[in-house]
Amino acid sequence: MSDLLQKASKVKSCVVEMGKKTTEQKNDALRLIADELVNQIPYIVQENQKDIVNGRENGYHESLLDRLLLHDDRIKDMADALIQLTKLDDPIGETIDSWDRPNGLKIQQVRVPLGVIGMIYEARPNVTVDAASLCLKTGNAVLLRGSSSAIHSNTAIVKVIHDALAKSELPIEAVQLVEDTSRETASKMFKMNEYLDVLIPRGGKKLIDTVVAQASVPVLETGAGNCHLYIDESAQVKMAIDIAINAKTQRPSVCNAIETLLIHEKWAASHLKDLISTLQDNQVEIRADDKTLALVDGLKPASDEDWKTEFLDKIIAVKIVASTEEAIDHINTYGSKHSESIISETNEHVVDFLNTVDAAAVYHNSSTRFTDGFEFGFGAEIGISTQKLHARGPMGLKALTSSKYLLYGNGQIK
Amino acid sequence: MSDLLQKASKVKSCVVEMGKKTTEQKNDALRLIADELVNQIPYIVQENQKDIVNGRENGYHESLLDRLLLHDDRIKDMADALIQLTKLDDPIGETIDSWDRPNGLKIQQVRVPLGVIGMIYEARPNVTVDAASLCLKTGNAVLLRGSSSAIHSNTAIVKVIHDALAKSELPIEAVQLVEDTSRETASKMFKMNEYLDVLIPRGGKKLIDTVVAQASVPVLETGAGNCHLYIDESAQVKMAIDIAINAKTQRPSVCNAIETLLIHEKWAASHLKDLISTLQDNQVEIRADDKTLALVDGLKPASDEDWKTEFLDKIIAVKIVASTEEAIDHINTYGSKHSESIISETNEHVVDFLNTVDAAAVYHNSSTRFTDGFEFGFGAEIGISTQKLHARGPMGLKALTSSKYLLYGNGQIK
Repeated sequence: MSDLLQKASKVKSCVVEMGKKTTEQKNDALRLIADELVNQIPYIVQENQKDIVNGRENGYHESLLDRLLLHDDRIKDMADALIQLTKLDDPIGETIDSWDRPNGLKIQQVRVPLGVIGMIYEARPNVTVDAASLCLKTGNAVLLRGSSSAIHSNTAIVKVIHDALAKSELPIEAVQLVEDTSRETASKMFKMNEYLDVLIPRGGKKLIDTVVAQASVPVLETGAGNCHLYIDESAQVKMAIDIAINAKTQRPSVCNAIETLLIHEKWAASHLKDLISTLQDNQVEIRADDKTLALVDGLKPASDEDWKTEFLDKIIAVKIVASTEEAIDHINTYGSKHSESIISETNEHVVDFLNTVDAAAVYHNSSTRFTDGFEFGFGAEIGISTQKLHARGPMGLKALTSSKYLLYGNGQIK
Repeated sequence: MSDLLQKASKVKSCVVEMGKKTTEQKNDALRLIADELVNQIPYIVQENQKDIVNGRENGYHESLLDRLLLHDDRIKDMADALIQLTKLDDPIGETIDSWDRPNGLKIQQVRVPLGVIGMIYEARPNVTVDAASLCLKTGNAVLLRGSSSAIHSNTAIVKVIHDALAKSELPIEAVQLVEDTSRETASKMFKMNEYLDVLIPRGGKKLIDTVVAQASVPVLETGAGNCHLYIDESAQVKMAIDIAINAKTQRPSVCNAIETLLIHEKWAASHLKDLISTLQDNQVEIRADDKTLALVDGLKPASDEDWKTEFLDKIIAVKIVASTEEAIDHINTYGSKHSESIISETNEHVVDFLNTVDAAAVYHNSSTRFTDGFEFGFGAEIGISTQKLHARGPMGLKALTSSKYLLYGNGQIK
């Protein structure tokens, strides 16, 4: 039996048991994992160094090596996150709804685990702890498939998790790592409908697109963010500039940073130069449409491709529009349905923007940088969904649950 | 441009407009469609007869011809269903949740349409009206792809819907029928992620399995029902027999009818013969396990395949078990996670069964025949989901919706 099939069978074998675990049993296990991570820091760091050495040999970029790196503080942060997770409400067992039918049947809808979650992710080894702990907290079992670049780190972390689970009342089968990181194995995992209830890809656009295109297991798509900021005619000048700078530069590499600025022509006539120069003072490269080029000298023209691009860098496309409607059209054409914001003091425009822009999170007078499970107050985040089924936007613990109807009768027949 | 691409483009073009329609505008359109269906009965019946004639020429089974057939009463029933639908609450625009964050951001989660729904279905032309009306009520646009056997009926019905929409404030683009019913076209539809937000297959297991295996568009799986009735040691005799007869024979061809009876050995020792003879009096063929064969003469033995089979006919597999646990294990091994029932007066066994059986609907002391949107009181049903993402069990109007976060700020930056 292949490594994949063996691990998938193990994970599936404990689903019924996992579904019955109490909140206390689950939280105890999370605390034991936190302790074990801290106790085994030297071991984890030693194994992580093997990945770092391999990465250097393979000529990985410094930023990738940094994402791979584990050290004392990062491992302690992982342990802290586990303790935070124990403090969150357990959604499992919650009565979502209940009602009686005229025939006397009592219907109760309760929240249950999804079952087996397949997680396919890249680079960062902290995702291993993150995904495993969120799944355990919600009574799920998880089959992890990380990247080959982090295989020593991931294997070590899962060993540490198993050491902790062995002391807990949860089965160690509930967290399994696929050690074969070949593409063929990943492709097989996409089709394991008999073993997996859902697949969650976390990583770059290419990974996510591949999973969406090929998987027959239902996918929770955590997508790319081609986000926009629209500065309306009536936008407060300082607010608009502050938000543009924040949404673009505070952390350009994340999905909720903006990639395109849409500016109403009347606002642009008075304030465009200030905005552009402030962006340039913050080392942001501008890619401008014709109207912007006509107002400000020395900018690089935007190509058609730029409107579709998630730069994930200090680059921004700038377009001047004649109306809120034109801004909305542009966003609904090029946006990735992630996070969009309007800066405006005109209620009618705001209402139109909020209602008509098709995205997981639509903001008024705010930076888009708050689309995040922690900023939303969920206390945890499994990813940000850009699809419309099941969960949309930041996904907290509830996104890892399903429901079930319980019906209580006294002999009802139809 | 192919028929498929042309229709898909039309449907997608009106999504923004559909999302803005008021409840009154949508209900008016539904009433106009109801009127038009009744007004155009002769035309619909004439076109339907072409499908019936073709069906006879192709040697269709009488039951299939009956499912194809449209006549006065059936068309009036379709119109009545539309009027009923106008009376249901419109879920769109509902505030699902709202809260404030410490930084002053106000977060509101509102219910929105899914967008474009692709519906792939077999035979029954009434699904055309049913699917179109549920989608319109929820502000969605729909791309319909029925079977070639019903193409004249479906084309006529969509023409009638267009005649009605032309008098309404909804765009006629919102309901489009793919007239090319080739398999190649269906396969292309499975991959139209740019146009479709969700695919809903309605029909036999083969159709659904094909869509699940091949689609990259997210699927709402409306699955087969391999449902069980477990008669526990303490089950009331008359209740157990009445429910077994009802769940098997009241309508054997539907997904919420039972296919296997699991009987506790102690109950079987006293009452099995009565139960079997009552089933036989109701023309039910029995496929029995060894223990049942040892207690009752003249029964046909069950094969391993029988435990996996949705007979959809007056056939039932019967197995004697030693405990509730054995019954649960059998169900979690062979069941299709649809509807399962325990007949018992032992609270501990009931609780264990309800908590441990993995199915969309789990019953105590009731027939499984109530797993249905109307019986649940939803007033409408788009299908019964056997998957765990998005919606599980009978799907009413809310299953055709997504959500969106609106965030109200006053200059928040991170």
